[in-house]
Formats: sequence, C-alpha cells, structure tokens
Amino acid sequence: MTEQYLMDPERKPTLAGVERAAGKIAMILPATPLLPLEIDGKTIWCKAECLQPIGAFKIRGGWHRLTDLTDNQKKHGVVAFSSGNHAQGVAWAARRLGVPATIIMPEDAPRAKLDNTRALGAEIITYDRLNGSREQMAADISRATGAVVVPSFDDPWIVEGQGSCGLEIREQMLARTGSAPDQIVACCGGGGLASGSALANPEAKIVVVEPEGWDDMTRSLEVGTIVPVGKDPPATDCDALQTLRVSSITFDILRDRGATGVAVSADEVHHAMRVAFEKLHLVVEPGGAVALAALLAGKVKATDRTAITLSGGNVDNQLYAKIITGG
Amino acid sequence: MTEQYLMDPERKPTLAGVERAAGKIAMILPATPLLPLEIDGKTIWCKAECLQPIGAFKIRGGWHRLTDLTDNQKKHGVVAFSSGNHAQGVAWAARRLGVPATIIMPEDAPRAKLDNTRALGAEIITYDRLNGSREQMAADISRATGAVVVPSFDDPWIVEGQGSCGLEIREQMLARTGSAPDQIVACCGGGGLASGSALANPEAKIVVVEPEGWDDMTRSLEVGTIVPVGKDPPATDCDALQTLRVSSITFDILRDRGATGVAVSADEVHHAMRVAFEKLHLVVEPGGAVALAALLAGKVKATDRTAITLSGGNVDNQLYAKIITGG
Repeated sequence: MTEQYLMDPERKPTLAGVERAAGKIAMILPATPLLPLEIDGKTIWCKAECLQPIGAFKIRGGWHRLTDLTDNQKKHGVVAFSSGNHAQGVAWAARRLGVPATIIMPEDAPRAKLDNTRALGAEIITYDRLNGSREQMAADISRATGAVVVPSFDDPWIVEGQGSCGLEIREQMLARTGSAPDQIVACCGGGGLASGSALANPEAKIVVVEPEGWDDMTRSLEVGTIVPVGKDPPATDCDALQTLRVSSITFDILRDRGATGVAVSADEVHHAMRVAFEKLHLVVEPGGAVALAALLAGKVKATDRTAITLSGGNVDNQLYAKIITGG
Repeated sequence: MTEQYLMDPERKPTLAGVERAAGKIAMILPATPLLPLEIDGKTIWCKAECLQPIGAFKIRGGWHRLTDLTDNQKKHGVVAFSSGNHAQGVAWAARRLGVPATIIMPEDAPRAKLDNTRALGAEIITYDRLNGSREQMAADISRATGAVVVPSFDDPWIVEGQGSCGLEIREQMLARTGSAPDQIVACCGGGGLASGSALANPEAKIVVVEPEGWDDMTRSLEVGTIVPVGKDPPATDCDALQTLRVSSITFDILRDRGATGVAVSADEVHHAMRVAFEKLHLVVEPGGAVALAALLAGKVKATDRTAITLSGGNVDNQLYAKIITGG
C-alpha cells in the first residue's frame, strides 16, 4: 500500500489496515479481557469492550482515524455524529491529540453519554433522532470550519479501527485455546465492529445481532442489498444500535463473507444484561448485550470456538437497576 | 527452600512462595486487568479481581493450596469456612482437581455466594455468624473425614496465593508506567490479600481498608498487637470483610512492614460502588469497594503510583440496584 492510498477516504478497509490500526491502538490501550462464559455446557468467549476507558469499543476507530489526520487537518478539527459511544471515542482521541472536536448527538441520548462526551472537552450539538439529518449538519459544519467529518461507521479508518477488536479476540483465543475463533457474534448498529472483525478473522463465520425492529443489516444481508430500517421503528433501549441505514463500506464486507444476522427482543437483551451482571460482574449497556442475548436465547448456536462482543457499558443507573432486578 | 519446607503448614509465607503461586496461577488464569481511574487529577490503578471466574481474588489462594495437596490428601478432600468468596475459590479449585470439598458458610451469606458455591459442586453446611464457631466445625469435620482444613487467611498457601494478585499489579504497572507501585491500598478482612501483596511489593507503602466497626486490623496495627472486633459489631453489607479476629500470619507481615489502616462508612462504600459502575463498568460488591472508597473519601491520599484492589463482585441484584440508584 502506498502512503497516498492509506490516506484516501474512498479506499476500502483491509486486513492490513486493521493490523496497522491494532498496532497503533496497542501502544496506548492494553487488550480488554476475553472472558469465558459457560452456556449449556459450551464455553463462549466474551470480549469485554465495556472496559475501555470510554466504556466502549468506539475508542478504537476514533484513535485510528484521528492519529492519521495531517497536521493541517488537526488544526481545523473534527466533527462527528453519534448516539454517544462514537462521540466519546472521537472526543477521547481528540483531547489526547489536542484536536478541536464538535459532536452532533441525539437529544435523547443517555445522560451518561452526553455528560461523558462533554467532560472529554468536546463541543456538543444535539438533534432530533428521527427527524434531524445529522449527516447534513456535519457537512454544514465541515464546510464552515474545515473540520474533517468522522462518521461512526461509513469510513475505512473506523472499520479498520473497530477491526482491531476482532484481531485481539483472535490473538487472545489463540493464546488461551490454541485455536482462532470459528464464529464471531457481534453487536451491530452500522456494522463497523462486525465488518472490521470479519476482516481480522478471515476464516470465521460472522453473525450480526440487532434489536427487533432495527434489524436492517440482517434484512439487507438476507436480500443482498441495503434496505433501511422501516418507517416508525419501535422504541428500544439499545440506543447504540439505532442506525437507520447501513453503508456499503460495511455491508459489502459482510455480504461478501456470507454473514447472517438475527434480531433479539428487549426481554432477551435484559436477560443477557443480568447474566453479565451475575456471572461476569460486568456492566453492559443494552446495545452491548445483544450478541450475548442471541446466544442465551438460542437464536445463535454456540460452536466450539465462539467469540462475542460485549461492546459497551454506558447505561444510566436507573435503567440498569430496573433491568437487573427484572422490573 | 526444600520441598519439605514448602509443604509445612507452620511455615511463614515468603516472596518466593508468592512467585511460585503466581506461576501456577498464570498457567490457568490470565491476569485480571489493571484499569486506570482519575481521582482529583491523579491516576490510580484498579486491579479488577471481580473479573476472576468466581468473581473474587480468592480463587488464587484456593488454587495454590489445593494444587499442593498430596494425592492421599486429595482423596480425603478439603473443608473450608468462608463468608462466600473463599468458599467459591476452594470449590472452584476442588472441582477442577476432582477433590471433594465441604464448605461451612454463614446462614446469612449473600444468596449469590451460596448458590454459586453449591453450583461448583461443594457440600455446604451453614452456621450462625456471630454465635457458631466455624473453626470448631471445620476441625470436627477434619477429624471425622481426614479432610484438610483450608482456612480463608490463616495459612501460608492462602497468603502466598493472594499475593499473586500483588505480583500481577507490580508487573502490570511496570509494563504500563515503567514503575512499580509506591502504594498499595487493599480491601481487608483477615488480611490475606494485603499481606500477600505486601510480600510481592517489598518497597510499596501498604494501607489496609476495613468497614467501620470491623476495623480490627487497623486497630491492631495501631497498637502493635492483635485486637479482635468489638462486642456487637454494627451491621454491614461488606459481608466479605466480617472477620472477628485476624491471625498472626497476616498481622505479623503487615506490622513488620509498617502498614496502616483506615475504616470507611457505608455511604463511602456505596459511593465507590457507583463510581465503579459509572466510570469502570465493573460490578463491585461492598467489601470489594472499600479501598476505592478510602481514596474517593480522601482518607487515603493518592500517590504518583497508587494501586488498589477491587477484590470481588458477588453482590445480590436487589442490593446492588438500591446502592447504584442512591437508595
């Protein structure tokens, strides 16, 4: 790869790019633990990304993207739109690199995510999730200020950065069991984590998991072309996975790999959060628990070497208390 | 050290013993993460022992002790008394080694701890915490069955095994920061974790933290001789730290190292559990949060290289929900 290619925002993400991202990330963030969990007599491996400094895997893509900005780009800053975890990932990387960051967040984002993003020094602009166009807002800000837009999944750096999670899973499973994963079950909003992890694990079966009513990647993979979320999608507390339409950059990778998807219900998600509380002692947010939910509900069958992502832990305390007590 | 010395239950725990324990433990349990947390502008390092398979550091001592049993001892089994985490540590090691285990637990132990210990295949006998003599019960069972008594802290193997936690802290801080810890703040019941970690970190200042009214190690260190918990100690939800009297095996190490102690209130513990929930996304039980509580309350001052133990995460869901919502 030439340096020019690496800096091309139109390029496709590659395994080499995932490896480059993983190298940069390993210099500042130790691997999150891969924790064993027994389900029906089989051990599955749970990647605890909720233990990242921002409480989610999104720190990976943010760091990979922002460290590749030119000095001139760094001066003009970045603008991102996000339900909250990508917001924190970009804000964290921006603060560490001294880059100004503007983040466009839905007005109904969890308070924890809004507060944490603000605490990281980013400027926050809120919008109406179902009616506002965050893409348009970001484009307007970029035109006015020269800031680089950092999308939450429709970007080669972001896919490669999230893929470093899949590469760590691979290395940790090799170290622990002697074998790479044969199945990766990933929480899916726009598909950055799933597609990046697919690149990192060329021989594994890939399954994406989404909340019911927001399973557009699952349906897109079924029909072979991108279909958006239906009109008036249901309420969900999986705020991290409320993507209205995936991108070809993530979809193409998953389609070409023969990935499949499943949807899980709110009850199944809540049960998974309780299991993570009781058995793993991890705080997992609803959107971060969908992959575990699919395994526990029997919607995805555990293989001999299944790894799943517990992708985030940013959940408000009242909601969490209600869920773990079964309320 | 001769083999005979290593097998002598009357021997004193040593740094060499801690290193031997750590070697055995590293073969089956990867190091738990050491997570940074910013408090008043200083970064402290939190050892997430709640992520052990049994949800507490006690798996370390259990494994070190049981793997050193002779074949004949293994046949006759082990008997232990514990408020719950040591119970699970011994039961986990016993199941893995095929050794019969009987565990004496207080009848008011958290349901999670009772259930988990039973699920690990141990036989459970309950007793009245304030009136029953668990030491006498264990001695009686040992006499009748030939089982080896595995005390929860008054034992050289247990201290060395728990000390492997301190050795991991030391190695992880060296890898992350280039320096060993200069202060270790440890949750303290009988003092196994604190004294073992003291052996592993010969140059660090050692501070033990206990719940108010159960601060017998703190007072013992103040007066230079072992004093028991006072008559009618207060109720506490730090069930893991309700030790009525420490042992000379742990006390002597801490006294000789000039260790000091502090006591924390229930409110301080609950605040620490909320911080662990929000900032670290870790479920920490009350007794596992006392060291963090002492830092947050300003009762222990953070140095440049302070490490603390988050020693366990086995807490009932109703209590946890109440605490994290400030109820």
